[in-house]
Amino acid sequence: MMFSVVKKDGNARTGLLELSRGVIHTPAFMPVGTIGTVKAMSPDELKEIGAEIVLSNTYHLYLRPGHKIIESLGGLHAFMNWDRPILTDSGGFQVFSLSALRKIEDDGVHFKSHLDGSMHFLGPKEAMEIQAALGSDIAMVLDDCTPYPSTFEYAMDSLFRTLKWAEQCRELRREGQALFGIAQGSFYDKLRKKCIEELIDIGFDGYAVGGLSVGEPKEEMHRLICFTAPLLPKDRPRYLMGIGDLGDVLVAVEAGFDMFDCVMPTRNARNGTLFTSMGRVSIKREEFKADKGPLDPDCGCYTCRNYSKGYLRHLFLSREILSMRLNTIHNLYFYLNFFRNMRESVMEGKFTEFKARWQEIVS
Amino acid sequence: MMFSVVKKDGNARTGLLELSRGVIHTPAFMPVGTIGTVKAMSPDELKEIGAEIVLSNTYHLYLRPGHKIIESLGGLHAFMNWDRPILTDSGGFQVFSLSALRKIEDDGVHFKSHLDGSMHFLGPKEAMEIQAALGSDIAMVLDDCTPYPSTFEYAMDSLFRTLKWAEQCRELRREGQALFGIAQGSFYDKLRKKCIEELIDIGFDGYAVGGLSVGEPKEEMHRLICFTAPLLPKDRPRYLMGIGDLGDVLVAVEAGFDMFDCVMPTRNARNGTLFTSMGRVSIKREEFKADKGPLDPDCGCYTCRNYSKGYLRHLFLSREILSMRLNTIHNLYFYLNFFRNMRESVMEGKFTEFKARWQEIVS
Repeated sequence: MMFSVVKKDGNARTGLLELSRGVIHTPAFMPVGTIGTVKAMSPDELKEIGAEIVLSNTYHLYLRPGHKIIESLGGLHAFMNWDRPILTDSGGFQVFSLSALRKIEDDGVHFKSHLDGSMHFLGPKEAMEIQAALGSDIAMVLDDCTPYPSTFEYAMDSLFRTLKWAEQCRELRREGQALFGIAQGSFYDKLRKKCIEELIDIGFDGYAVGGLSVGEPKEEMHRLICFTAPLLPKDRPRYLMGIGDLGDVLVAVEAGFDMFDCVMPTRNARNGTLFTSMGRVSIKREEFKADKGPLDPDCGCYTCRNYSKGYLRHLFLSREILSMRLNTIHNLYFYLNFFRNMRESVMEGKFTEFKARWQEIVS
Repeated sequence: MMFSVVKKDGNARTGLLELSRGVIHTPAFMPVGTIGTVKAMSPDELKEIGAEIVLSNTYHLYLRPGHKIIESLGGLHAFMNWDRPILTDSGGFQVFSLSALRKIEDDGVHFKSHLDGSMHFLGPKEAMEIQAALGSDIAMVLDDCTPYPSTFEYAMDSLFRTLKWAEQCRELRREGQALFGIAQGSFYDKLRKKCIEELIDIGFDGYAVGGLSVGEPKEEMHRLICFTAPLLPKDRPRYLMGIGDLGDVLVAVEAGFDMFDCVMPTRNARNGTLFTSMGRVSIKREEFKADKGPLDPDCGCYTCRNYSKGYLRHLFLSREILSMRLNTIHNLYFYLNFFRNMRESVMEGKFTEFKARWQEIVS
């Protein structure tokens, strides 16, 4: 893996992340393909709208169909028919957010599957084995995602586990698969700083900040984004996990983050909330009933080029599968285009203007 | 509308149905786009697999979003982004099968919407007005779909309504929109014969047989297919409504029918039942778990070219939207390809062999 910053504008930066399966332009948005498919999209459609990398979930794929099955079917790329880069998270966050019951121990987590109630164990060794079997281009260390709020003492204990697991994962790093560390430490600056320093000592291909967007106030999140970014190595990609509200993205890019993932564009699409150059729009609005116009006249996506708001409203109210398809194409195109324009603004030294203009629209 | 029989093999025939929006090769299968979209498919995908015409439903589109809305959005073709021919049924069958409450009178049907319980009236005038607003290439007359079983007396009364309505629809025929008559008469040969003779006297662009697949035994259906086909004009397209089981299609093509529609390939796809050259397959079968092979090695569809049975099983069990998409692409491709091969067999004078080979597989 090679990473190079091409241009800086303040702390915002645009760069290239080069992997054997393709180049990713940063700041990059990674559509989420939780269980081996970006919901409602085909791989061809993802390519057409310019997705350079997708994220997939270790936790889900481990439980179903199982990483051994995927390995025997040629790995995750062949399985899902996607030949560009894939980043897999380690499953830490999903164990924390989805499993009904979990017992965190020093060497890993015992948890109950949200699918069938069966008991499982996930430690650093298992997380690395699963990601090796999946064959992702970028693997994430197993981390202990600290709940919000947590006392300083709990957050510190949790952080030690995260660091110990990070070290163990690092030892199991596979040739040809990049490995990113994940900074935890709840909302305690001291712990975040300590964690990042330790991670840098261990040494990773990239560095992520996790444990945000877990229920904290926006200001706390923004403060921590701005606090952590400058602590992360300048010559490595910086990944802000799970954050995808575009207002938050603007703050994070300004602080110097490079990579993002979020289910927001895809999930909102299925719920009929669409992103446009005029802000968010609920497609079910009565006023769209006989509206001939495209959802967003400034948008060049397949949906906006071919369908009226009247038709999109009809499909949504009729709960048609094509509604989810056309809405998802539009929202992901909007996101990827937003990132494309944001990179350009950094390139031209105009990120401040870009941020000022969009912050009003997206908030 | 022009129709020409190009080649006959016994009573089976292959021909061309020429409409201003495109040519349809017969025997033709029409994918069903009930409410303005063939479920799970985009218009581009339908074209790619060779669909030459789709069917859409007057009843559904009248209730939602309303034919006036569709008219104001440029008609059904523009609304759904489909520039090839569309056939609309008249709504008769849906009033019969879907509405909670209906009162049939001599001049039409009062019925309760299955969506919101509101009361509506559909007569020949309304059916023609709605189809004119939709702008379909082929409209169907309003018919009274006789329930099964019915007494001779009831079937006769029902038939008189159908004929009266057919006559009224014929008077309202629009220039540029073909109009097909529909033969009813339940399972009484005498009534079917009478109905067809009267329809021919009125004069239509094509002739359909309705009121089959309403609960009768297969032998009854097949007997009636074979009884009615030779009564229909040779120089006009013959449409067997709602029949799409491929075993039934083989019987009907042998008898001389030209057009078919059915939700079976699309509905079965969403339920995980897939058509292959080896017969029907349930994609959720345990044995497919780690199966690298395509669903059907003889199939050239996007799904079979790019995905393993293991992945298709995973998507289905995970209830992913892509599962419904890939399954629908496959099933419709299979159907359209089946019809293509069937036409070729007629062209080569080998329909009997084609029927014998496939009858075993599809039954």
